[in-house]
Amino acid sequence: MRDGEQTPGVSLTPEEKVWIARNLDALGVDVIEAGSAITSRGERDGIKAVVKEGLRAEICSFARALKPDIDYAIECGVDSVHLVTSVSDLHIREKLKKDRTAVTQMTVDAVEYAKKHGLVVELSGEDASRADLDYLESLYRAGIDAGADRLCFCDTVGVLDPERTYEIFSRLTASLKVPISIHCHNDFGLATANTIAALRAGAAQAHVTVNGVGERAGNTALEEVAVVLKSLYGVETRIVMANIYPTSKLVSRLMGVPVGLNKSLVGENAFMHESGIHTHGLLANTATYEPITPETIGRKRQIVLGKHAGRTSVVMALREIGLEATEPQVDEITRQVKDLGDRGKHVTDADLMSIADSVLGIKSQARIKLIDCTVLSGNRATPTASVKITIDGQEVVESGVGLGPVDAALNALRRSLSGVADVKLDEYRVEAITGGTDAIVEVWVKMSRDGRVISARGAGPDIIMASVLAFVEGINRLVQENNGIKARSQP
Amino acid sequence: MRDGEQTPGVSLTPEEKVWIARNLDALGVDVIEAGSAITSRGERDGIKAVVKEGLRAEICSFARALKPDIDYAIECGVDSVHLVTSVSDLHIREKLKKDRTAVTQMTVDAVEYAKKHGLVVELSGEDASRADLDYLESLYRAGIDAGADRLCFCDTVGVLDPERTYEIFSRLTASLKVPISIHCHNDFGLATANTIAALRAGAAQAHVTVNGVGERAGNTALEEVAVVLKSLYGVETRIVMANIYPTSKLVSRLMGVPVGLNKSLVGENAFMHESGIHTHGLLANTATYEPITPETIGRKRQIVLGKHAGRTSVVMALREIGLEATEPQVDEITRQVKDLGDRGKHVTDADLMSIADSVLGIKSQARIKLIDCTVLSGNRATPTASVKITIDGQEVVESGVGLGPVDAALNALRRSLSGVADVKLDEYRVEAITGGTDAIVEVWVKMSRDGRVISARGAGPDIIMASVLAFVEGINRLVQENNGIKARSQP
Repeated sequence: MRDGEQTPGVSLTPEEKVWIARNLDALGVDVIEAGSAITSRGERDGIKAVVKEGLRAEICSFARALKPDIDYAIECGVDSVHLVTSVSDLHIREKLKKDRTAVTQMTVDAVEYAKKHGLVVELSGEDASRADLDYLESLYRAGIDAGADRLCFCDTVGVLDPERTYEIFSRLTASLKVPISIHCHNDFGLATANTIAALRAGAAQAHVTVNGVGERAGNTALEEVAVVLKSLYGVETRIVMANIYPTSKLVSRLMGVPVGLNKSLVGENAFMHESGIHTHGLLANTATYEPITPETIGRKRQIVLGKHAGRTSVVMALREIGLEATEPQVDEITRQVKDLGDRGKHVTDADLMSIADSVLGIKSQARIKLIDCTVLSGNRATPTASVKITIDGQEVVESGVGLGPVDAALNALRRSLSGVADVKLDEYRVEAITGGTDAIVEVWVKMSRDGRVISARGAGPDIIMASVLAFVEGINRLVQENNGIKARSQP
Repeated sequence: MRDGEQTPGVSLTPEEKVWIARNLDALGVDVIEAGSAITSRGERDGIKAVVKEGLRAEICSFARALKPDIDYAIECGVDSVHLVTSVSDLHIREKLKKDRTAVTQMTVDAVEYAKKHGLVVELSGEDASRADLDYLESLYRAGIDAGADRLCFCDTVGVLDPERTYEIFSRLTASLKVPISIHCHNDFGLATANTIAALRAGAAQAHVTVNGVGERAGNTALEEVAVVLKSLYGVETRIVMANIYPTSKLVSRLMGVPVGLNKSLVGENAFMHESGIHTHGLLANTATYEPITPETIGRKRQIVLGKHAGRTSVVMALREIGLEATEPQVDEITRQVKDLGDRGKHVTDADLMSIADSVLGIKSQARIKLIDCTVLSGNRATPTASVKITIDGQEVVESGVGLGPVDAALNALRRSLSGVADVKLDEYRVEAITGGTDAIVEVWVKMSRDGRVISARGAGPDIIMASVLAFVEGINRLVQENNGIKARSQP
């Protein structure tokens, strides 16, 4: 929660810090760096709130080798400080405007001061990977003599490679008899490999962040290190694997930092399968295209259709929506799905249903049709909408108000359906809109009725109409689902 | 463009494939896998269109070890096939329902068939990292005897580690005398490290994708391998480094796959700095907190403010918006910026301006005020909006139509300003909305006037009003910017 929170634009409130800390503790993390006490009053409130939780994990504050930094950490009541001092000549000269002797002296003073106040001290060499190793070792020794409990080697700008890391840690762990941590950044995509290399060479701790958040390209990802250690090196950690994904989701949401779609293990796509070849293999045995089961880290597999869809994935997808088809029908549905995919489209459940309905000859007449929808909104007007729909040909007119025009329109629609279908809107999602105000907006909804869940889509330059279309499409899916099931049970 | 395009939900049109291929060629890529010819008609149209471009790079199609796959590749006129055959017993048994002998035979037949038709053949072992190495080697030898020009070792589910990769490639490159490629997946975050390990052990080619796109957690990222080779191992490739970022942006946009914020090198945050400590160092020498300059790969550095902002970053940011302040004023602005950050907010240019305006005593009265805004939209109505604003106290009423209600409202606003301020909306962005239709929407706009660019924000449950507010705030920023500059030049 310190280096992770240094992600540009990220700022956690004390309440958010507490929630994340609780989850990290339950995940099995040994040390939680709760923040940097000197940063601001809000930051100290957050650290104090985390300390108050009385968690199993050691609570730590970041501190520079300066008295005020340590004083603020003491004020927060933390167990330990991550005491960071610049060790590369570049940092010593350009940032601190000092020399090596002065840095060693201020470091020793800071360690002694922190120890005198009862703190556990992890002495960290910033930019260690670009420092002179002999100087670094002498500084570490001076720190140990001053009472440092642990050391940390920071690859501050992410320029280590696995071989160099292994070499450096072999040397350091052989000559220094306190636990040494590895702290990597992912600027070149090697953070996990370097962290593992250090652990192989005797590092005792790894500094990691959930989802690999952090400054610039971020820090080493906790989930990657935990899974690599267990799956590839057979090393058990205290990490509760099944908590990984829920914690990832929480951190992403509270930090407001979306996880990249193809982020290892926790990205939305990490256990999603589209291509025909792959789903064919998966159907036989999920291990063919998965290194571990998604359940290992507390998540689920997803199958999506598109232009790479093969017959097998269509059969799987049809089965999921309660339909069966003959071989020639499956061929035709597959052809149409690929065709939609070729045109650059995602294929939703709704698309598949509508293709299947027409191929299988299931009555696909929409039961609900939107005739008219008018919306009025303004800074001094209550967002108001009227809708006219037909339900099985019967006209219904209704109105609704809401917090905004989309809300008003959907409320009007919901009302016009009352007594006919009790549908629930579980999720409403608008893809990020970038470009001009005339860009096409894509709206996705997830809706449910009596436990059945479907997704539907609406698109257009008008966000209100796109939302209404998605909603109507979803309702039709939900009220027709029954037809589909009926069609199957009638041979 | 084959494994990359297998990202779930991604589908490139032929035109998009051509654009990406041109950029890959200019980037210096040696072989472009344009697609998998058997997939669909649209896919073949795409591959043919790429072939027609007459690029420097070798154009390749993916093909299974089956005659129809190769026939379709031949039809497309590609130079080579990436001929993939299952080699692990798991894949052979569960997916192909065959045995090793049968797989070797079908592979030999396929290689001979492809060679007879004049194709360059790269024979690939799928799931090689979970295969019996002795069998794999015998299959490779049979393939070479049948005419295969190159081999490829696929870590299909991403379970290699750097040490095993090095070991395997040392063995294969010593015993097999044709070039061998490494093909990694990033399921555990080790794709780049494994690819580098293979190259160190004699691999001749690396299969990579721009932004690391691809099935599940994706493939090895081109940009990471290129930069690691050059920066850490001193190995020159033919990659034109300065093209990396533009190509990344193009691929992301055409595939519709946003790059993770903290993706190494090409993520939005990779060269963005917030924390006070770091910007302090950066101001002295950018190398303190950057492994390479952003310009190396064709991009720029960004400084953002937040709760970690120190005085130095505030001074830097003020300078960027044309303001100077005394030391106590900077202290006060820094305090207020941190305060906003503590409340979990991003600090935009507009926020900084408004803080600076009040601290520096610059007249911050908004010149333009929104009095009234009404919007009407519907499926049968032309989206129409009316606005009443005051400009320096003078009332103006205008109306506008548009493709949607937001577009209409902004058109009405633009009209009401004509002759007063010629402002341009450069970017309109709505953060993805997830939750219900009553969720708070956050709208960001980037606007410019006479070359000056500012950003502003609007938020609320009504997307139209949030957009209008952001727009009005932006206009006020732009028409007051002059005051700010004036204030500085009056001592």
